[in-house]
Amino acid sequence: MSLLMHTLHVELGERSYPVYIGRGLLADSQLLARHIAGSQVVIVSNDTVAPLYVEKVRALLGQRKLVTEVVLPDGEQYKTLATLSNIFDRVMAENHNRTTTFIAVGGGVVGDIAGFAAACYQRGVDFIQVPTTLLAQVDSSVGGKTAVNHPLGKNMIGAFYQPRAVLIDTNALQTLPARELSAGLAEVLKYGLICDEPFYRWLQEQMPRLLAREEAVLAEAIERSCSNKARVVAADEREGGLRAILNFGHTFGHAIETAQGYGQWLHGEAVATGMLLALELSARRGGVSLSEVDDFRELLLDMHLPVRAPVDMTAGVFLELMARDKKVVDGRLRLILLKAIGDARIIDDVSESELVDLLNELPAEA
Amino acid sequence: MSLLMHTLHVELGERSYPVYIGRGLLADSQLLARHIAGSQVVIVSNDTVAPLYVEKVRALLGQRKLVTEVVLPDGEQYKTLATLSNIFDRVMAENHNRTTTFIAVGGGVVGDIAGFAAACYQRGVDFIQVPTTLLAQVDSSVGGKTAVNHPLGKNMIGAFYQPRAVLIDTNALQTLPARELSAGLAEVLKYGLICDEPFYRWLQEQMPRLLAREEAVLAEAIERSCSNKARVVAADEREGGLRAILNFGHTFGHAIETAQGYGQWLHGEAVATGMLLALELSARRGGVSLSEVDDFRELLLDMHLPVRAPVDMTAGVFLELMARDKKVVDGRLRLILLKAIGDARIIDDVSESELVDLLNELPAEA
Repeated sequence: MSLLMHTLHVELGERSYPVYIGRGLLADSQLLARHIAGSQVVIVSNDTVAPLYVEKVRALLGQRKLVTEVVLPDGEQYKTLATLSNIFDRVMAENHNRTTTFIAVGGGVVGDIAGFAAACYQRGVDFIQVPTTLLAQVDSSVGGKTAVNHPLGKNMIGAFYQPRAVLIDTNALQTLPARELSAGLAEVLKYGLICDEPFYRWLQEQMPRLLAREEAVLAEAIERSCSNKARVVAADEREGGLRAILNFGHTFGHAIETAQGYGQWLHGEAVATGMLLALELSARRGGVSLSEVDDFRELLLDMHLPVRAPVDMTAGVFLELMARDKKVVDGRLRLILLKAIGDARIIDDVSESELVDLLNELPAEA
Repeated sequence: MSLLMHTLHVELGERSYPVYIGRGLLADSQLLARHIAGSQVVIVSNDTVAPLYVEKVRALLGQRKLVTEVVLPDGEQYKTLATLSNIFDRVMAENHNRTTTFIAVGGGVVGDIAGFAAACYQRGVDFIQVPTTLLAQVDSSVGGKTAVNHPLGKNMIGAFYQPRAVLIDTNALQTLPARELSAGLAEVLKYGLICDEPFYRWLQEQMPRLLAREEAVLAEAIERSCSNKARVVAADEREGGLRAILNFGHTFGHAIETAQGYGQWLHGEAVATGMLLALELSARRGGVSLSEVDDFRELLLDMHLPVRAPVDMTAGVFLELMARDKKVVDGRLRLILLKAIGDARIIDDVSESELVDLLNELPAEA
């Protein structure tokens, strides 16, 4: 066993599962195997991650009878029903049955699509998340949201389907491109902003060490993020209420991703800009001070994250795309805004003119 | 309210729902509306059923803001991921949100695909089954199994996803083609064979009246079928054990459907032949008498149902297709066989040579 492992639990009754966080977990010969019930495994990865990690995962599987590797092209633009169909073709052709286990090795795109494939294959087989990007480690691998995109909206086709286990090997972050590290840290900041002010203050202080990839600081950030996420998901698995706060910044962010074509902005980049918009709107409604907004903007700049929407995204484009958001209920857009740092609320009385003002007044990208 | 309505309940905790059975339910202005929470509705039907029933359903919806009709081509060969994708395109283009309700109006194909679409759209929206064929009324509309086919196997991609309500208007059976009536009665016979001997004996007696579509007899057959199904599903929603008995005859039947190309044999026809094979195998293992097998064969002939596999289905073809069945667990085929009429068991020790003998000795279609 690795020496520096922490284990969190997502408490969901019979669907409960552990989240292991530690350095070198992918070298642990027991941890993964213990969560695989049958003799068949499907490893889903992408062409960037597969050369780095798939052999390591295979080495942990021992003498399973049937191991199939499905390597997807890298990129959010491939998170589609067509890619899902290709996965089913491979898995059917190799005769995987209902006892097979899907293992997602990669970032959020791989985890979302592999999880959805597992949810649907023979009406549901086991799956395990091995997230290799920071964003997947702190966000998408925990909580059971799986999906593919539709050309008209992000994550519109999917399922709530919980993994059997999540293995987070913090070593993987040492090979992560800087742009993806920052995108992941945007989601880390989100947890502080919405429900954990002490964590947010700690992140403001520690950001230089996080960007320098200091292992212990990264591990703490991941653990505190997953811990917050596990708590929210346990309280509201299917987003009947509280879980919606995890979408802070995402309604604006999804609109940016959809308008740009998936794969241009990273999800975490779009969420960063989206959170800045949501924070500004929170300030205008008296929730947080304008200096908090300025501090957050400075922090994003230090992280090389975008603080402006793409230049062609007019208020009209935003409003049209936001109207399709999953959080729209009978015509009313529900936004997550902050009453204070660490205190998010679901707000459904933001008027169109408030949004138009907000979107017109903030400078777009040069 | 209609005078002759019976209500059953599928008891699944917070996913419980009513099954209404009666004559003229589609003329009842309250029954459907009471199960629709929002102001948006998607009606999914096919080009055979839509002209007969969609206007009736629309008339029950009152002043909903957004009603979208999706009319699929009729036939099992269209129960595919490609058709599912078309449904999402329509529903996304018309801006349906998470509060929408899908209503399936049609037979088993429509119910399966509309239910799966509802399970995946925005990670799950409400849906209601309005089955218009006997097969859908007694089987596929109750229990929450939804799916599409894969070219290599039937119902391989899907979800367990329960409807909010099932509305069975027995009037619909008066316009059903005779071939579909018989196919549905095959599934009715199944309930008697697997778990309700008195029902089976009653069906043997009443078959002429059922084939003559005597309304009261049909209604009783539907009610007793749904009641058996609701009981089995309540005991084992996700087919961990008992529910597998509902697949009596289906492992053979699915092989026939897959080999013929979906849409050639009706599902109930393939199941009829499959049940005869399973009954014959049960007799060879001492479960039932050979005269029961002969009686059942005669009954199927009276119903104009096929009693022989297609001529090109050799034992080899059967075995290859059955090896892909969802009920295969780690290489062992699990078959449902009868210990006696009304007493089905899950059997996993049937040898390949027993199957080869069975399939070679029974005469194929001329």
